[in-house]
Amino acid sequence: MKKCIVLFSGGIDSTTALYWALNQFGRVYALTFDYGQRHRIEVLMAKKITRKLNVPHKILFFDLKQIGGSSLTDDKIALPEFKRIDDIEGTPPSTYVPFRNGIFLALAASWGEANDIRKIVTGFNIIDSPDYPDTKKEFVEVMENAINVGTASSFGANKFKILAPFVNMKKSEIIKMGLSLRADYSYSISCYAGKEIPCKKCSSCLLRQKAWEELGLKDHLILRLEKEGKI
Amino acid sequence: MKKCIVLFSGGIDSTTALYWALNQFGRVYALTFDYGQRHRIEVLMAKKITRKLNVPHKILFFDLKQIGGSSLTDDKIALPEFKRIDDIEGTPPSTYVPFRNGIFLALAASWGEANDIRKIVTGFNIIDSPDYPDTKKEFVEVMENAINVGTASSFGANKFKILAPFVNMKKSEIIKMGLSLRADYSYSISCYAGKEIPCKKCSSCLLRQKAWEELGLKDHLILRLEKEGKI
Repeated sequence: MKKCIVLFSGGIDSTTALYWALNQFGRVYALTFDYGQRHRIEVLMAKKITRKLNVPHKILFFDLKQIGGSSLTDDKIALPEFKRIDDIEGTPPSTYVPFRNGIFLALAASWGEANDIRKIVTGFNIIDSPDYPDTKKEFVEVMENAINVGTASSFGANKFKILAPFVNMKKSEIIKMGLSLRADYSYSISCYAGKEIPCKKCSSCLLRQKAWEELGLKDHLILRLEKEGKI
Repeated sequence: MKKCIVLFSGGIDSTTALYWALNQFGRVYALTFDYGQRHRIEVLMAKKITRKLNVPHKILFFDLKQIGGSSLTDDKIALPEFKRIDDIEGTPPSTYVPFRNGIFLALAASWGEANDIRKIVTGFNIIDSPDYPDTKKEFVEVMENAINVGTASSFGANKFKILAPFVNMKKSEIIKMGLSLRADYSYSISCYAGKEIPCKKCSSCLLRQKAWEELGLKDHLILRLEKEGKI
């Protein structure tokens, strides 16, 4: 049976990747990193999503606060707030966590090698967030190569493959694809500020809001929070 | 001032790399991984070495027992014992930790990026241990490329460089170079079994013993243990 790992943060992109993978693979394992992120609530919500979908879920704890260098992993660096999406700046922005996806893919490859799984599905995309270096197609390709050279795959035919099916899609297109796969985004968290209720000021909130607006639809998360009387 | 990170486990190779780096760079930072290894004593001894040399030392804790898949990180997998060096087998052997050096280099790049250091010195070598996929020259090259594409270095000229000055040297040649740099191996631990006194049965003990024998010298560690009456 075809099996894969999905890098699953619980955000919009990786939630779509999870539904995409469930449609493509016979056995899907969600892999989430509890890395000391400011918005750690995403890990708890990710757990809710995999439980509802009955998907095996591995949570790895690696505290990147030991490294810092980002407003997501160092509380002394303020989280940037913006009024409008066009105000988002920084190449990379302070919310970039140094080489985070390199670390995540290295750990995913390690866990995959230990468990004989060599397909890694990601929700990486670059169109709406071009200032993050570690989500682009070229990075996926060179990292896949590094993994195949530096693991036991270098001795045999059983190669790793990193899939990034949305890499050149806008966020609204990613949501659209998710909706066609009947994705439920009610528990998907994007906000960097760390609360269940979106702050509407961080770059991640603004990008998510814009994507749903482009589709002319109301965000599943907002619908749920309204229903529960939380907003 | 030229600065670098040394991946420093405290073994023979990385201890030599530390002395080599101190000779080449104005500022040297030792980086050690406390990763749940069976021979965690190497971390404590590494600390002794950097204290004696007055080298700033960062120890990162990332528990690879969460991943397992190796006799070094899973206590349920027995550590292989050998009578002779020619009996060592496995491509890779069970002491291979899945993609360990990929994970270490990704974390070193992250820490380097957060601290504006982009030279990473390793003691990687392949001649005496050809069955480890993640210590060869080709891996160093492709991993360096992945780091430069996946970090903010992709936006500018400040590129990462991974150095592996001993990659094609035998272990006895590495020790010889270290001795020419007045390296002290008294606290350098190689044994996988987890004790200060070498087990003399694991592959790492056999390779170290052979290297000192080839040089016709007594291992500094053995000299110290004898002096302290421990053996």
